[in-house]
Formats: sequence, C-alpha cells, structure tokens
Amino acid sequence: MYEQLDQSIQQLMWDVRKRTLKRMQSAYDVAMKTSYKDLVTTVDKENERFIDDHLRKLDPNAKIVSEEGLGDKVTDLKGPVFIVDPIDGTMNFVMQHRNFAIMIAFFVDGQPVYGYIMDVIEGTLYHGGPGKGVYCNDQRLHAPADNDLHDSLVVLNSGITLNGGHNFREIGLQARGVRMYGSAGIEMIAVITGRVGGYLSYLHPWDLAAGMAMAKELGLSVKAIDEKELDVLSSNLVLVATQQVSRDISELIN
Amino acid sequence: MYEQLDQSIQQLMWDVRKRTLKRMQSAYDVAMKTSYKDLVTTVDKENERFIDDHLRKLDPNAKIVSEEGLGDKVTDLKGPVFIVDPIDGTMNFVMQHRNFAIMIAFFVDGQPVYGYIMDVIEGTLYHGGPGKGVYCNDQRLHAPADNDLHDSLVVLNSGITLNGGHNFREIGLQARGVRMYGSAGIEMIAVITGRVGGYLSYLHPWDLAAGMAMAKELGLSVKAIDEKELDVLSSNLVLVATQQVSRDISELIN
Repeated sequence: MYEQLDQSIQQLMWDVRKRTLKRMQSAYDVAMKTSYKDLVTTVDKENERFIDDHLRKLDPNAKIVSEEGLGDKVTDLKGPVFIVDPIDGTMNFVMQHRNFAIMIAFFVDGQPVYGYIMDVIEGTLYHGGPGKGVYCNDQRLHAPADNDLHDSLVVLNSGITLNGGHNFREIGLQARGVRMYGSAGIEMIAVITGRVGGYLSYLHPWDLAAGMAMAKELGLSVKAIDEKELDVLSSNLVLVATQQVSRDISELIN
Repeated sequence: MYEQLDQSIQQLMWDVRKRTLKRMQSAYDVAMKTSYKDLVTTVDKENERFIDDHLRKLDPNAKIVSEEGLGDKVTDLKGPVFIVDPIDGTMNFVMQHRNFAIMIAFFVDGQPVYGYIMDVIEGTLYHGGPGKGVYCNDQRLHAPADNDLHDSLVVLNSGITLNGGHNFREIGLQARGVRMYGSAGIEMIAVITGRVGGYLSYLHPWDLAAGMAMAKELGLSVKAIDEKELDVLSSNLVLVATQQVSRDISELIN
C-alpha cells in the first residue's frame, strides 16, 4: 500500500545524493558535537532540512526523527514515522570524502516498512523492507549464507573494542577477521550483502532503523545484546547478524 | 631510466585486473595456509604465475619475491628486484568480492623505484615512486596534510589490537577513529591518499614494498616500529604515517 511513497523516497535519496556530491565541491563548516570524534557539518544540516521538508510533503501526518534535531520530539512509534540520518559517517565524509551514507527508514506503528541506505560515493542505493525484498539499485539481494562466527568476518564498534567492553575482543578473535568502516550505513550494507556475518555496535535510532528494515527481510537476526526487546527509539547495543553468528555471539558476549 | 619498464608494468596491472575480474565469475578453490584466517585460492596462484612470467620477460636479470612461492629464493636486494602480491586481502576476495588489491614493487639495490597497487573492484591503479610523483590512474596525488594523531584516523592491525600488543589500543583511543579494511593494499591506499593519517601493521615484503615506494615520495614516514633500520625482506611491524602522526605514535608504542 506504500508503493508510491517508496518510489518517492527512492527519488528523494538520489536527489539528496546529487546535492551532496555538488556540495562537497565547495567549502562547508565542520563543528564538534560531543567531542573531537563526533563531528557535524553544514552539509549534515542542509541535507536534514531538505530531506525533512520533502518527507513532510510526502506524508504530512508522519512524525520525523532526525539526527541533527530538525525533526519532531518523538516519544513513541505510533502511526507513520520517518527516521532520518542526513550524513552517516560524518568523520569519513570530512576526512575521507568516501565511506559515508544517507539513511531513511519508514516505520508504521513500531514496525519497519521500508529502509533506504545510499552509499553516496559509490552511487548504490540499498532499499526494501519486510515482504518487499531488498535491492541494490534494481538488483534483488539474496539472503546471506547462514555462516557461523568461525566462518565470518565481523564489524565491531571500535570504541567498545579498544576499551575492552562486552567481550568484543574475544568475539573478534574467534571470527575470521574484524572490519571497522566508520559508518553505520556502510557497515549495515556489509551485513545485508553478506560481506560480513555480524555487526555489533552502539546504535542510535537513525543508525539502526533503515538497516533493520532490510536485515529482517533477509532473514538476519536483529536484537539488543542484553536480549531485551529492541527499542528503536532508544540508543541500543545492537547485533545484526546471521542466525548462526547471532547464536555464537550471544554465548560470548557479556 | 625505467620509464619503459614503468609503462609495461602499468599495462601488466590492468591485464591482471581484467583476468581477475573474469576469473571471479567461475569457480575457484580456496585452501587454508597457516590457519582458517589465512587463505589462498587458485586465483592467487594463477595471478602469481601470470605476473612472474611477464616480469621475467620485462627484465630477465631481476629477482622476484612473490607471496605464493613461485618466485626466487631472495636473500638480499642487490640489483633489480620485483616484489609481488598476486592477491592481497584474499579473505576479502573470498568473503566480500571487493576490498582486495594486486601489488608489484620494483627495487634496485635496496631502494624503491616504483610501486603499484591496483584496487581491483574499484578499477584504480596507484603508481609511482621516489622522484616520479604518485598517481591514481592519471591523476597526480598531493602529499597528505601533516596532521597529528589527534586529528587523524588510523588503521590498526586487528590481531595485534585484539590481543593487546604494543599499546595499539591507546593509540587507537587517542586517534579520531580506527579503521580496519582487511587488505594491506587497500590500507596503504588509505594512507597515501590521506584518508587515514597512520597505518600500523605486521607486514610481509609483498604487503609493504609497493606502498613504501609511493609513501616515501609523498613525504610520509615509513619505519619499523622498533626504530631499527627497516628491512623490506623480513616481515616487520611497520608504521606508515604522516611525520606528525609518526612522532605521536612513537611516543605511545611499546
């Protein structure tokens, strides 16, 4: 029932990509948020305004949760809700000019309907949701092979790993290898395409929602690592993984 | 004096890329080398044979050091020497079908003359050496900004980081962020393009030589982290970094 909305959001993602690529060619301001490891730029803010304005036209009744604060104060997921990350991986955007993403999710009554992740530099839009399939541009993705931890690469949050939290180091040592890309969107793409078998990180709603919509459709496990019900609106330590990797990591994590 | 050789090796890199992309479309064997984290495929071996055969025609007097053992037994770097990695990041090649590289270096009397790193999937050839400039395809690279550790992303070897060696964790915590890509070639590209300010890993000759030739030309520091003279023929714990990051890491490492 949301096919028209889906088409409109896909077009919006391509429009925002085009704006972003153009915007990168001229000067923009970079500011720190919580620390020197947490940046925001004028491009984040301009993208958020552009996206939020368009989403309000697409569904004036929907609430909007967006990273840089232009959205609504949302305390529950009743009805239609958009969750927006205007630039995910801002550090990579500033330092690498690649490996960053734009993400939008559409939820209704707490359930994911569509997720969208744009790898801006590569020009690939991942999109889909429960019952709709998941696509990279126009190509449908297969469900990733249900490998176990021993046969999988994993992405681990770097801060938690360096600080020794939650037994991440042992999980990394048991995997085939550890990867860290510095953008939740790029890391979500890695897990939904099967390039890694698991992704463990501390995720805000805008980091999680779009990938969650697609991961569920692909048969992947998405859960809070304390095993409580996942609350998309709270920040969570989240594991997105194949079913086997999810079981293996659940035995190791603390 | 090696301009013709340079042109021939660039052409060889593109030829090997083409073979590799074609070869990925049909079945190949994967075998373990030292552990389940260390793989070799028939594509590694086929590429090595193809590259070594061509290099022998280009300079029949040169010695060849190559990863999978088809080269010469080389005990010193006197005269002309090729150093070859036919597939770097074999785990990524097998598991991700991206983020792997092909590398060739040309040394004369122990000094780097040319280095070549091909990002196979992206189709970008990084090449150059001391006095010759460094290029991404035909575009000349600038020397990366001489940022300090606090203002830089760093790539750290995942095994050493997880196992707590050499104070890597503290180095990672002081940096703006940590990245791990799983291929020395891709990680060398990150440091020579300035996408990361430092790269710390345990490197075999074929992991190091090509990137070293280009890093030196770009004013980057390349050194063994025990501060002894770097021996390209031995495996080494190596730091490739901006001059400032190199000083900052030298104070922290043990």
